[in-house]
Amino acid sequence: MPEVILGLGKTPEQIVAIATSLLERADRLLVTRVEPEAAQALLAAVPDATHHPTARCVTVERTRVPKPEGVLVVCAGTADLPVAEEAAVTADIIGNDVRRLYDVGVAGLHRLLDQLTVLREARAIVVVAGMEGALPSVVSGLVEAPVIAVPTSIGYGASFRGLAPLLAMLNSCAAGVGVVNIDNGFGAGYLAASINRIALSNARTD
Amino acid sequence: MPEVILGLGKTPEQIVAIATSLLERADRLLVTRVEPEAAQALLAAVPDATHHPTARCVTVERTRVPKPEGVLVVCAGTADLPVAEEAAVTADIIGNDVRRLYDVGVAGLHRLLDQLTVLREARAIVVVAGMEGALPSVVSGLVEAPVIAVPTSIGYGASFRGLAPLLAMLNSCAAGVGVVNIDNGFGAGYLAASINRIALSNARTD
Amino acid sequence: MPEVILGLGKTPEQIVAIATSLLERADRLLVTRVEPEAAQALLAAVPDATHHPTARCVTVERTRVPKPEGVLVVCAGTADLPVAEEAAVTADIIGNDVRRLYDVGVAGLHRLLDQLTVLREARAIVVVAGMEGALPSVVSGLVEAPVIAVPTSIGYGASFRGLAPLLAMLNSCAAGVGVVNIDNGFGAGYLAASINRIALSNARTD
Amino acid sequence: MPEVILGLGKTPEQIVAIATSLLERADRLLVTRVEPEAAQALLAAVPDATHHPTARCVTVERTRVPKPEGVLVVCAGTADLPVAEEAAVTADIIGNDVRRLYDVGVAGLHRLLDQLTVLREARAIVVVAGMEGALPSVVSGLVEAPVIAVPTSIGYGASFRGLAPLLAMLNSCAAGVGVVNIDNGFGAGYLAASINRIALSNARTD
Amino acid sequence: MPEVILGLGKTPEQIVAIATSLLERADRLLVTRVEPEAAQALLAAVPDATHHPTARCVTVERTRVPKPEGVLVVCAGTADLPVAEEAAVTADIIGNDVRRLYDVGVAGLHRLLDQLTVLREARAIVVVAGMEGALPSVVSGLVEAPVIAVPTSIGYGASFRGLAPLLAMLNSCAAGVGVVNIDNGFGAGYLAASINRIALSNARTD
Amino acid sequence: MPEVILGLGKTPEQIVAIATSLLERADRLLVTRVEPEAAQALLAAVPDATHHPTARCVTVERTRVPKPEGVLVVCAGTADLPVAEEAAVTADIIGNDVRRLYDVGVAGLHRLLDQLTVLREARAIVVVAGMEGALPSVVSGLVEAPVIAVPTSIGYGASFRGLAPLLAMLNSCAAGVGVVNIDNGFGAGYLAASINRIALSNARTD
Amino acid sequence: MPEVILGLGKTPEQIVAIATSLLERADRLLVTRVEPEAAQALLAAVPDATHHPTARCVTVERTRVPKPEGVLVVCAGTADLPVAEEAAVTADIIGNDVRRLYDVGVAGLHRLLDQLTVLREARAIVVVAGMEGALPSVVSGLVEAPVIAVPTSIGYGASFRGLAPLLAMLNSCAAGVGVVNIDNGFGAGYLAASINRIALSNARTD
Amino acid sequence: MPEVILGLGKTPEQIVAIATSLLERADRLLVTRVEPEAAQALLAAVPDATHHPTARCVTVERTRVPKPEGVLVVCAGTADLPVAEEAAVTADIIGNDVRRLYDVGVAGLHRLLDQLTVLREARAIVVVAGMEGALPSVVSGLVEAPVIAVPTSIGYGASFRGLAPLLAMLNSCAAGVGVVNIDNGFGAGYLAASINRIALSNARTD
Repeated sequence: MPEVILGLGKTPEQIVAIATSLLERADRLLVTRVEPEAAQALLAAVPDATHHPTARCVTVERTRVPKPEGVLVVCAGTADLPVAEEAAVTADIIGNDVRRLYDVGVAGLHRLLDQLTVLREARAIVVVAGMEGALPSVVSGLVEAPVIAVPTSIGYGASFRGLAPLLAMLNSCAAGVGVVNIDNGFGAGYLAASINRIALSNARTD
Repeated sequence: MPEVILGLGKTPEQIVAIATSLLERADRLLVTRVEPEAAQALLAAVPDATHHPTARCVTVERTRVPKPEGVLVVCAGTADLPVAEEAAVTADIIGNDVRRLYDVGVAGLHRLLDQLTVLREARAIVVVAGMEGALPSVVSGLVEAPVIAVPTSIGYGASFRGLAPLLAMLNSCAAGVGVVNIDNGFGAGYLAASINRIALSNARTD
Repeated sequence: MPEVILGLGKTPEQIVAIATSLLERADRLLVTRVEPEAAQALLAAVPDATHHPTARCVTVERTRVPKPEGVLVVCAGTADLPVAEEAAVTADIIGNDVRRLYDVGVAGLHRLLDQLTVLREARAIVVVAGMEGALPSVVSGLVEAPVIAVPTSIGYGASFRGLAPLLAMLNSCAAGVGVVNIDNGFGAGYLAASINRIALSNARTD
Repeated sequence: MPEVILGLGKTPEQIVAIATSLLERADRLLVTRVEPEAAQALLAAVPDATHHPTARCVTVERTRVPKPEGVLVVCAGTADLPVAEEAAVTADIIGNDVRRLYDVGVAGLHRLLDQLTVLREARAIVVVAGMEGALPSVVSGLVEAPVIAVPTSIGYGASFRGLAPLLAMLNSCAAGVGVVNIDNGFGAGYLAASINRIALSNARTD
Repeated sequence: MPEVILGLGKTPEQIVAIATSLLERADRLLVTRVEPEAAQALLAAVPDATHHPTARCVTVERTRVPKPEGVLVVCAGTADLPVAEEAAVTADIIGNDVRRLYDVGVAGLHRLLDQLTVLREARAIVVVAGMEGALPSVVSGLVEAPVIAVPTSIGYGASFRGLAPLLAMLNSCAAGVGVVNIDNGFGAGYLAASINRIALSNARTD
Repeated sequence: MPEVILGLGKTPEQIVAIATSLLERADRLLVTRVEPEAAQALLAAVPDATHHPTARCVTVERTRVPKPEGVLVVCAGTADLPVAEEAAVTADIIGNDVRRLYDVGVAGLHRLLDQLTVLREARAIVVVAGMEGALPSVVSGLVEAPVIAVPTSIGYGASFRGLAPLLAMLNSCAAGVGVVNIDNGFGAGYLAASINRIALSNARTD
Repeated sequence: MPEVILGLGKTPEQIVAIATSLLERADRLLVTRVEPEAAQALLAAVPDATHHPTARCVTVERTRVPKPEGVLVVCAGTADLPVAEEAAVTADIIGNDVRRLYDVGVAGLHRLLDQLTVLREARAIVVVAGMEGALPSVVSGLVEAPVIAVPTSIGYGASFRGLAPLLAMLNSCAAGVGVVNIDNGFGAGYLAASINRIALSNARTD
Repeated sequence: MPEVILGLGKTPEQIVAIATSLLERADRLLVTRVEPEAAQALLAAVPDATHHPTARCVTVERTRVPKPEGVLVVCAGTADLPVAEEAAVTADIIGNDVRRLYDVGVAGLHRLLDQLTVLREARAIVVVAGMEGALPSVVSGLVEAPVIAVPTSIGYGASFRGLAPLLAMLNSCAAGVGVVNIDNGFGAGYLAASINRIALSNARTD
């Protein structure tokens, strides 16, 4: 597993210090919630680091791990992209060839229904949604794979910074949905990677 | 317009007294939130009253008004029926030939998509939903008519007695959705009737 | 229907890019929640665009649609003007000759009662209110037309950023009130336009 | 001042014991929130006690105090009567000839406007309201006297047991409104009596 | 009564424009929640205006009204001074010779008990408190005059921006306490002035 | 997959009617949240049904499916048993040989640490907890498998009917935790079964 | 330490079974939140058990431990007695000669100030309060010993089942106050006993 | 006891003025929540002051008091350090030789279990935690000393600025935990110092 730093609330100096220290013994690193200034500092200090600006992440991969398919990240559009990309980058660096489906929403069902094959090929699906948070329920009704729902704080007023989609997802009428914290793309990507790893290893009792 | 009594929190004796008093001058009456015992007392005192047990309503109609089509009430199943029926009975006694679509939900989209013609023929659609409250968003994405969303208190845990679907509906990604109070089938039926009446009269400025 | 962009949370560059892309195939465009800087960028890139600073909107109308009367927007004063104007601009670009009544509040009832004729001529009334959110109830008690209530986040303390008027509107003692999200002038204008359109088309059953 | 017992959460035996003990040295007593069973027990033990069933109060007055006018209690109808009567009975036993105005609400403004003289003769006005809690704002806009607002837990759904009118009253656009706890008719009657007493005594600095 | 402008959310230009317009017909003016920049602009435009920096108010008094004693404003210390002073300045310009008691708190009871005479001479007492909001209960237990409680948003964490003292004040074990919105010094001063005016006029029914 | 009926809010007659109807075409049935009276009625009507009183479930299994190991259900003790057993019975009837670990809690860490082997053999772990909801974080820190956290409404006061453990689980410091609704043993068991099935089938892309 | 059973949510049979099992190896037992029926069953099964009806506790003490003074339990009156007594019985059976002060409240400060000596002799003070929850702040301002504050759910309306005093206590302006859950007399008594034990043992560093 | 200034919400000038005034009669001073700019101003004005940047505190100690051991401050890592250090600095200046344990968390139990001796030597333990707030429960299960739990506002989303760990700590399954306000390191350090002082003096009744 890669080392992970939550950049939120840390200064660029602190992030660089922790990162360089961890990289003395680790060959893969994920930094999440990195502001642009901290990302610049990190890239200057660690030349082989990669900045993922939409995901607000920086990664370092000094050894490559095999990256099988199986993890799919789904969202409805641009507003939810930072969280969706955080999930995708997280699952990727843990060791997954992540597939993305970023233009499907409940207000335009046909685009979602056009992608049934992609949805049904996944072993673990991360569904990111703000607003009324209905997308995970709709997706879960279409597939058998476990669905990991991520509410986002996108919205205003009675969204209450993501409370609305969080409650919606916890009350999903579709069984098989696990929910993570608001905006927690990292946690969702990590959980999806755990499920895919279990599916692929599958070595303990058989 | 019919006279209306909110039965909630009133004794059978109070309901009978108010109803008989109102019927001295009114020829149509709607009593909502009537417990079975109060309904029995009302039927005994007002022999031409009708009890709608699922809707928890009693109605008296001594003159018939014309009842045009145009109002549609939609919900996903048995748990939401009392609220959906309260909306339907309300719109009916105000003067509407109400259409019902009661077996469509977000976890089984095909049943909803099979009813596109019915959905698109309506002038005002009441959509009742508990759980994650996603159905109004999905319906509104499929039609042009105004959608009136009614959250229900069905559910448990993080439903918080209907708060979850209420917030979801207020944050609907589909425009054209107006929301009423949790379990307020009466208000939704009344608003749908207002819209249909405006559509049919349409006499003021033209 | 015009194309719509929610400007909230998007950079000026993103808004200009999406707008110019949409205008390649659309001849009407509404951008809501536009900060002044983004409005400037948009006007520079799209010379025939119009900025509505109070409404925080930018519109482009390359073909004119007929704009019948019927939609009325009501609020109590300057604090609620941005939301009221967002509703009015939205209904206008969809195709309505919107009437405004902006100086009526519950603390000065006579000004409201002086406008009974205007109120009763409308087919759909958007009522915008912050503070205790009582205006939609009072207006709905005076008219038969459907009322769309918009709570605003104006206020402080126990307003809890608009929660107080939101709850008040959901609990309105006057039937026939549909509520939209806090500060959601766009949604209210859109819903009012839907109702007015239904009223004016009215071609299905007659 | 009379002795006061809050009956809520006390057994009939406890209430009778405390009441008889207090009456050994007091000649006026008010018991609030008395269930019917406890009221019966109290009347049996204290023959000169009076039961006010709507107010859910029992009073004992062994000496009469002068009861000047000045306190007015206002509400919209039957649902709020228990709280309104608790306020009225409280102000009465403290020493006020309380006036009641119980059929005025925001959905029927004319009945309220018909009573302007009564409203303006009062020195302290208790306004009781559930639902959207708008009545205190409307009343306060019509008078100069201090208004004491009492939210009630009447309602359902997004009333959240009285939270909706409580927040509305705290955010009143009309200045000069003081708010007490949900359903706290006693506190409102007590505060109105304090204001009227100050107004009538008025002896300190003049 | 003076004219009143709520400065919150208004630009210096808007405040100056409204103020100069009102002063054409009014001879007393109160502007609340004025930021320093707006206060400077106001003083430049209205030379006889007075800035009260702690209260964040600007006043203009072109005719003097009689200012009897009777209103007392109480708080525990520096953090609550802006709200306490807003109450005092408001009651002053309405027409009161306001007394202040600003160094008494529940954690040092003796300082409060030393001021019993001052407390008992008042006809209306405004008590401002943040933190646990206990001061109004303690004061109300010591006097017979009506107490107006003002919660403040001073604090952090589980204060939830003033929710903690607001709830505490609404649940006061001492009767005779009316509560206004969080930080609403203006409303409290206004209500205290109303009570004192009623007490001093006292002319209607006698 | 078995047919599922949520018994909550349904009468015994309704449950029996739905169950017998479903069993005409299904050979496996799960009824959750069954009150004892409804369970008796169901056993009378469906003689081969099995009642799981702690889980508050009734099951019918007319064909046996293979039940591999891999799902583990963990909780701290008797108070959480109904929810834990609902999860276990759900995963069992879907087709899992469920292992249970019911005497491990955060206040007695050694009992948990004694079971490391059992914990690390599982492919999907359901962790049920009320109170402070810390057990899923602790378990997830000890294993690599995905953890499904179920908050329970056990508790009082500031538990707020399960809100406390729900929030704790959503904020888990251990990655790889997915959360379901308060008391939703069914959803957790279903999700664990989905993960185990994916792990065991693992046939799509390889 | 005695064994402890939380009776809340357990049947009389379950309580008796757990109690008799524990008493095979323990010689002191505390059962909290025992309903009268369960207490009867327990006394029948364990003849040397003692029922504390106000505290809603049953205790068994087969060996006596020394019970030094030092723990004081304070509350304002009858409504808070069950929680105060639960704290006192808990501290007693752990091994404390508990002192009680049950008639002191913030609305009658003199009774509290009369007991300064008793307050200042304690090593750990449990202060139980509902309503506005101000008593712990006032007590803590008078003593140097640690104060353990227990909010109670006594009250109605904006008490929100104890949330009001809970928030008040967490925001106490007096330092040195630790808060436990609403109605958690057991936890407070236990914590007071821990502090007193530490104070009396005091053997490690001296 | 040292004098204490809460720096939060005070300007550098105000802090310097209060501090210099207090130091005329006090020889120990603690200023909490000091922003860097105010700290600089304070060091310039009071040359013998010490700035503790992580704790955001400034202290002045002109006489040394004896500082016995007994107080331990525990947290999981860097994010909680400011609050933990505020607690430590507070207990130190009151008169304690504070021990720190800052690298132990629930997701890595072994590091905690490695420190059992340190944990069990303490007389009062402050445990600071954000996220799910589980650490105080785990620590309290390992020791007999009183535990003071401090929730922090570290986190995002459903942390709701520290509400999640606050509720978790109030619902701790481990008895003997007292909770202070979110981020209230000062209160926790003060309470721990009170307990240690009581333990060391222990002179009253023996």
